[in-house]
Amino acid sequence: MAEKKLPTSNYKGTRDFYPEDMVFRNWMFSRMREVVESFGYREYDGPILESIDLFKAKSGQEIVEKQLYDFVDKGDRHVTIRPEMTPTLARMVAAKVRDLPKPIRWFSIPNLWRYEAPGHGRLREHWQLNVDIFGVNSLRAEFEILQLAASILYAFGAKSTDFRIQFSHRRILSDFLQKSLGLPADKEQAVAKILDKKSKITREEFLSLLREVLDNPETQIPLIDRYLESDLTSLTQFPEISPEVIAEMQNFYREMEAVGHSDNLDFDPSIIRGFDYYTGFIFEIFDTDPKNKRSLYGGGRYDNLIGLFSNDQLSGIGFGLGDVTLQNFLETHNLIPEFNRDDSVYIPLLSDSVFLDLVQLTTELRSSGITVETSLDVQKMGKQIQNAEKKGFRYLLIFGEDERNEGKVLLKDLKQSSQKPLNREKLAEELKRELGI
Amino acid sequence: MAEKKLPTSNYKGTRDFYPEDMVFRNWMFSRMREVVESFGYREYDGPILESIDLFKAKSGQEIVEKQLYDFVDKGDRHVTIRPEMTPTLARMVAAKVRDLPKPIRWFSIPNLWRYEAPGHGRLREHWQLNVDIFGVNSLRAEFEILQLAASILYAFGAKSTDFRIQFSHRRILSDFLQKSLGLPADKEQAVAKILDKKSKITREEFLSLLREVLDNPETQIPLIDRYLESDLTSLTQFPEISPEVIAEMQNFYREMEAVGHSDNLDFDPSIIRGFDYYTGFIFEIFDTDPKNKRSLYGGGRYDNLIGLFSNDQLSGIGFGLGDVTLQNFLETHNLIPEFNRDDSVYIPLLSDSVFLDLVQLTTELRSSGITVETSLDVQKMGKQIQNAEKKGFRYLLIFGEDERNEGKVLLKDLKQSSQKPLNREKLAEELKRELGI
Repeated sequence: MAEKKLPTSNYKGTRDFYPEDMVFRNWMFSRMREVVESFGYREYDGPILESIDLFKAKSGQEIVEKQLYDFVDKGDRHVTIRPEMTPTLARMVAAKVRDLPKPIRWFSIPNLWRYEAPGHGRLREHWQLNVDIFGVNSLRAEFEILQLAASILYAFGAKSTDFRIQFSHRRILSDFLQKSLGLPADKEQAVAKILDKKSKITREEFLSLLREVLDNPETQIPLIDRYLESDLTSLTQFPEISPEVIAEMQNFYREMEAVGHSDNLDFDPSIIRGFDYYTGFIFEIFDTDPKNKRSLYGGGRYDNLIGLFSNDQLSGIGFGLGDVTLQNFLETHNLIPEFNRDDSVYIPLLSDSVFLDLVQLTTELRSSGITVETSLDVQKMGKQIQNAEKKGFRYLLIFGEDERNEGKVLLKDLKQSSQKPLNREKLAEELKRELGI
Repeated sequence: MAEKKLPTSNYKGTRDFYPEDMVFRNWMFSRMREVVESFGYREYDGPILESIDLFKAKSGQEIVEKQLYDFVDKGDRHVTIRPEMTPTLARMVAAKVRDLPKPIRWFSIPNLWRYEAPGHGRLREHWQLNVDIFGVNSLRAEFEILQLAASILYAFGAKSTDFRIQFSHRRILSDFLQKSLGLPADKEQAVAKILDKKSKITREEFLSLLREVLDNPETQIPLIDRYLESDLTSLTQFPEISPEVIAEMQNFYREMEAVGHSDNLDFDPSIIRGFDYYTGFIFEIFDTDPKNKRSLYGGGRYDNLIGLFSNDQLSGIGFGLGDVTLQNFLETHNLIPEFNRDDSVYIPLLSDSVFLDLVQLTTELRSSGITVETSLDVQKMGKQIQNAEKKGFRYLLIFGEDERNEGKVLLKDLKQSSQKPLNREKLAEELKRELGI
């Protein structure tokens, strides 16, 4: 009777990264790193398990109750796999806040876990670039973060027409809700959530949701419509909205404009983002592709990141960019290059008698920085070429007994169906020139 | 009353990676990657959660019962955070085994979790370089893996006297145990485990453990002593040990010698390693530092990696190198360089009036590949220099109103206490020359 075999599928909602997937992931992450590091941001990381207390206090209720991968460890500690990075970041910053030179510019690319129904672009394990700056109270931090957020997409080859950046300020929203609409505290969040949904529902649904909550829909709904259509100029017609904050936003826009960042930048009063979380400037970046108008990422300012851990105050601004979201954007806009192995060589083993010579040769090449994969079984040339092709190689080095005796090596180009002799003595040098590395 | 604050400590047995720790980790991992990739190995990764079935079948009992971070997810699946990478590797290879061109050369640097009492060099979360080759039945795979394993240490600057590689073959051990000692199957593993412990216990302890298990200790213990003192020549005096395997090992040694890899290579019949796991060649690499004579890493051949998942047969050889172990080795032998930020610059903000010019300037520099961190608050020069030093910068660029008007930028070297003017127009070019990048 045949033994029962285990299935080879991975855990639901996760991905196996085969080499061809990993090449892409490494490419994407290293490009992100380059951009973020060029602004002086430094990478950090924490353990994937944290005490559940970190999340109970700050993460949304839905996350804690339904989406955590939490469990009790063998030492009776209630822990969870991190669903987001900010609590770990806050913990680490709080532990050393007085020693860390300001501004603190940090980033990380953690994997995060949420128990969700896997679906389009939603996975249980995903990676997320997290970028944060702390200790700058002026809008210059916002300025830098927006510049950086856009630079990432530009570094992948995106054009300014491929995405739009929309920004607002929580004070503008809360002044409008509290003062212009005169909402009591308990209705403020409910109305904000409806505004946030607006673009995903019909006008009728939108109005009916509002009517359920508002006390005077006849006068309040026209005000809401006028608010949502406002720009930074017409917004001044709401006398209840802080003129100082409007002026700050105007000035912010002008500065972005002055350095050429205004093409795809808009003030948008409907931007909400995490209601409990952000306390000042907020922004969101959207894909402009008509088939795919979705939010790519966003962030904002939070006034007291480390309050859970410390009495010190520290204001920061940051954003998070998910790998699946970015991959979708890059695919939509054709920004993923073809990955190949054209900078490396494959060496077939043609007879046992040259094996040790080949080892010497590959050692030389590798120490010159050339990637060399060799066959370890003697096989016919045709089969070896087939195998090299299947492995994605364009270049082969042919080194049999004849070549050894003649002091040369043949470089075979499978794409051009050509070959040329290289000098064995100067092989590394000549090969690097041929491969252009 | 003051609000109760959460502790800032991380979960027991794990590490927070602050930027200074992360610089080291990234340096270590990218050096590993370079070496392994230069042999044509390709990186893979899998999800950190796997079904517990993968581990129940193959991992040691101690791991499964006491060391797993396992739990039941919200969909009633019994899962575990991976304690080792090999079962994931086997699952992924099995899923595509017929399509993957051979030899399969793969590596990964996963984080792994075991519930252990944290202690010297033992953590609950650690990273481990895993390198494997599949589909080569000859000892050439062993040859390549040993060459690669040693190349990693050499790439970090180790000398051949800093470590020793010891190898053996499971067939030699099992022939000795079964045939020379005449042990029944149930005692074979017990005796192997005692041999494995030998270097960690006293001679008396060793003998007393053996006497507990052996039926004829008077004749068997002298045989064991003679076995453990054997080299590849004297080993042939045990007629029960396969002469073919001894000859293969002799030939293997001669080939390693021929390519200059025999300095620190020894046959050692006491090498055991995972008893249930390996089926052929085994090796172990030891630190030679007298204060610190420990096993760094090791591996071996396993005949049927994918048997749990597939009826196909696939033999492989691989090894795993832990990050904590490697870090200890590098520290012991003084192989960790000083990490600095001498290839990047810090720009103090000297007046609000130059902010936008600075943005322009930093954008230029960053797109030329130079890392630039700027101050975002106007502060006195002294304070800014202090801050730049605290952040680890050696170089500052000074660009105030005077410099703007004169079309220049001053490069300040905090180490040399010197400064020199650079041309604003050719800044990126001149700065790259100065920084040597």
